[in-house]
Amino acid sequence: MCPAMVENYMVQTVQPTSDTRETSRLISSKKVEGTSVENTRGDNLGHIEEIMIDKVSGKVAYAVLNYGSFLGLMGGKLFAVPWDMLTYNTQRSAYVVDIAEDRLKNAPSFDAGTQPRWGDRDYDKQLHDYYGSRADWYLSGY
Amino acid sequence: MCPAMVENYMVQTVQPTSDTRETSRLISSKKVEGTSVENTRGDNLGHIEEIMIDKVSGKVAYAVLNYGSFLGLMGGKLFAVPWDMLTYNTQRSAYVVDIAEDRLKNAPSFDAGTQPRWGDRDYDKQLHDYYGSRADWYLSGY
Repeated sequence: MCPAMVENYMVQTVQPTSDTRETSRLISSKKVEGTSVENTRGDNLGHIEEIMIDKVSGKVAYAVLNYGSFLGLMGGKLFAVPWDMLTYNTQRSAYVVDIAEDRLKNAPSFDAGTQPRWGDRDYDKQLHDYYGSRADWYLSGY
Repeated sequence: MCPAMVENYMVQTVQPTSDTRETSRLISSKKVEGTSVENTRGDNLGHIEEIMIDKVSGKVAYAVLNYGSFLGLMGGKLFAVPWDMLTYNTQRSAYVVDIAEDRLKNAPSFDAGTQPRWGDRDYDKQLHDYYGSRADWYLSGY
């Protein structure tokens, strides 16, 4: 990504927002759920269904994404994405993922109404490797 | 708290649960919201309304608690409690707070439908000091 794009898409931590459920520093879980997910061009990819929290550290480990028609996916498939792959953009009120669409589409998924193998180290490693996540804290916590 | 009580109320990290939205390690934000909060004697104090997440670190900073009649409070008051003050107990499917009821009752609160001064360092420090939170990472992040 070129420097100008990085500047456009970085988190605007000093910008206040009018919605008090979200400040420069904190965001409510209720606001995260349902928030739009976009690619770096600003196309809407879908929304966040829920987030998965590591009980011991209190850190968010995954966002569960529900993609829309933009990726050519039928509804009903959910994607667990390591949290560090998402960057919040306050101007767009959306999370941005800087990942090629083919990779997003072909990522490990699970059917809505079911759950993947949360807490299985092999599954977690597969997900982190697939996306190139740098969240080593999560895998080393096993 | 005597050693036997500590053993009773500690998080049972190795115990599997039948609800796949929650494993020994991960819990969904949707499951945290609405989960019961109890004192160490097992009395129901209320439930978690939502959680506030620090955007930069991805860590949970606060739980927003809605107490019930046990504390003699009328509904409608919400309490922001530093996340490290809550311990999840898988056997009871509840978060346990080991804080005297007088302290819980007289803690800083805000009206439902409004929001407190999230992101104001003085407010945050007041809350962390009040509860004796050890979450120094949060205050030092300013």
